Amino acid sequence: MEISEIGEFALIKRLTEEIKIENATTAKGVGDDCAVLQPSAGRQTLVTTDLLLEGIHFDLQYVPLRHLGYKAVIANLSDVYAMNGQPRQIVVALGLSKRFTVEDVEELYAGMRLACEKHHVDIVGGDTTASMTGLTISITAIGDAAPDDVVYRSGARDTDLVCVTGDLGAAYMGLQLLEREKAIYYQQRREAGDKADEIQFQPDFSGREYLLERQLKPEARQDIVEALAKAGIRPTSMIDISDGLSSELMHLCTQSNTGCRIYEERLPLDYQTAVMAEELNMNVITCAMNGGEDYELLFTVPLTENDKVSAIPSVKVIGYMTKPELGKILISRDGAEFELKAQGWKM
Amino acid sequence: MEISEIGEFALIKRLTEEIKIENATTAKGVGDDCAVLQPSAGRQTLVTTDLLLEGIHFDLQYVPLRHLGYKAVIANLSDVYAMNGQPRQIVVALGLSKRFTVEDVEELYAGMRLACEKHHVDIVGGDTTASMTGLTISITAIGDAAPDDVVYRSGARDTDLVCVTGDLGAAYMGLQLLEREKAIYYQQRREAGDKADEIQFQPDFSGREYLLERQLKPEARQDIVEALAKAGIRPTSMIDISDGLSSELMHLCTQSNTGCRIYEERLPLDYQTAVMAEELNMNVITCAMNGGEDYELLFTVPLTENDKVSAIPSVKVIGYMTKPELGKILISRDGAEFELKAQGWKM
Repeated sequence: MEISEIGEFALIKRLTEEIKIENATTAKGVGDDCAVLQPSAGRQTLVTTDLLLEGIHFDLQYVPLRHLGYKAVIANLSDVYAMNGQPRQIVVALGLSKRFTVEDVEELYAGMRLACEKHHVDIVGGDTTASMTGLTISITAIGDAAPDDVVYRSGARDTDLVCVTGDLGAAYMGLQLLEREKAIYYQQRREAGDKADEIQFQPDFSGREYLLERQLKPEARQDIVEALAKAGIRPTSMIDISDGLSSELMHLCTQSNTGCRIYEERLPLDYQTAVMAEELNMNVITCAMNGGEDYELLFTVPLTENDKVSAIPSVKVIGYMTKPELGKILISRDGAEFELKAQGWKM
Repeated sequence: MEISEIGEFALIKRLTEEIKIENATTAKGVGDDCAVLQPSAGRQTLVTTDLLLEGIHFDLQYVPLRHLGYKAVIANLSDVYAMNGQPRQIVVALGLSKRFTVEDVEELYAGMRLACEKHHVDIVGGDTTASMTGLTISITAIGDAAPDDVVYRSGARDTDLVCVTGDLGAAYMGLQLLEREKAIYYQQRREAGDKADEIQFQPDFSGREYLLERQLKPEARQDIVEALAKAGIRPTSMIDISDGLSSELMHLCTQSNTGCRIYEERLPLDYQTAVMAEELNMNVITCAMNGGEDYELLFTVPLTENDKVSAIPSVKVIGYMTKPELGKILISRDGAEFELKAQGWKM
């Protein structure tokens, strides 16, 4: 169904009428000029925003809309967990070009709702608008934490242990895999000439399911925030790994005024990531350091917490913080030292 | 300077290093995974989000970036005032295509900062990203209010007076004027053939400055929220006029379960709006009812507040609420009755 058939207001109604409110802090959700939240006594409010643009952050030729909605929410919640907080609400702004149907937007929303339900987050507001050029998704997440629990990027100290969760580089390898299969598909179409539309293309993902899942349906590490609290550990600094380990390490070091020494042999890598890198003739360590979209947590704890933190499943100590003048160093398996480099987006 | 020359992180640093924090509720602004806010005891939090897309919401051929930044912020703050609240913070997400320079983004930010300073609002976070297709601006505003002061769309009752602030339709007429001058400019270029670039085009805006200002540099009615509080009036319902009076009236009536009777002769119109409509052969009442982007406030008060509300400068009573079965009616100067129609965006 074309969105123009039902109009903006009916679309919003369809998207939002199934939304259930879970949080006591949500006083009024969708439907007014603002959402109204009732902050819990003694807690601070956390706010983060993310903008996802078609052609830059996602390719709808291989990303199902439901997965995209899920991932877009997860990327925001991950930032709240990275402050050691609990996400409570999101607001969602969508720009939709004419090629999107009502059913498309419902798929996208279904994915967003799924992520919200899993993390007990309410969708409390938004904006939908026409777009000249594809899909735009802008989400702002709101969470809370007790002031003493909030963990900043700036609290790491010399000798603190550097820890990461899960494994690194798999989301990036998943992207490479999708890009490769897409290229093969277009190659086959070109070769088929005017019979291109008859092609029955089956992308080959067998044995690579983990990479796909990491790219298409990442998770935010609420479990780690919970496990740290249960273990009585308050990280001295924390950040989520969205742009790649290397640039997140740079942020922690710069804002904490430390250096770091990170050991290549300690970087957590999944078997499929390594095999895929090999197959694509890429350096798996480069993928792990700069891949991005892992949505794992990178944090530091005092050296004295070594035993406790190492006992948490899926947390790995990969190095330690140093005095700033010692630099930000990656030590390879053969003992060579490399200076870390920042990576942001390029235009 | 190309953004690629300095990169994402240096760009963010340039944009945010001049930001001053004004609000006691801002515990930590730009620079971490989330902003951290310290809610004031006994106040609720208000959240609203708006997405502005190039080619849909603005045309950079005649909107200076500084004005655009100002207006983008104002549109959000207006939603907080429409809840009878006080805006405190915004987060800003920008999508930037290659044609935007560092100086362009600084201009945009300068306008946003100006609006924030005027309304004592802090820029506490954001996201900047590359874009395939022009400029995307997504702003989320956060404000607060005492729970008893929050005004919803749903509180209007039968016999309540319907009030608007300022005047209506001028922003829309400003847009028509800009579109007309743009069309003339391109006409002249076409006529000049290969001498098109030599044209010294002077758009004719004389005597129309008010229309331009309403379109390019609208204001949010913080003064009205203040004046209502000072007069001891708590509106029963309120909304800001961003999509046109007609559709905002529909929202109030639908959500309050009322009808309304609005008198054409009472609609506040500026002289320039009327002259411009005449000149363009448009119906000035249609412009006032459906024009949009006025960022005035539409609200209802109990009948007993008539004297007090009428004494506030720039507030005008334009009609009253009725039982829902009486419909949503506009009464023309000659006494004819017209049913109001909803207007959202069309694709």
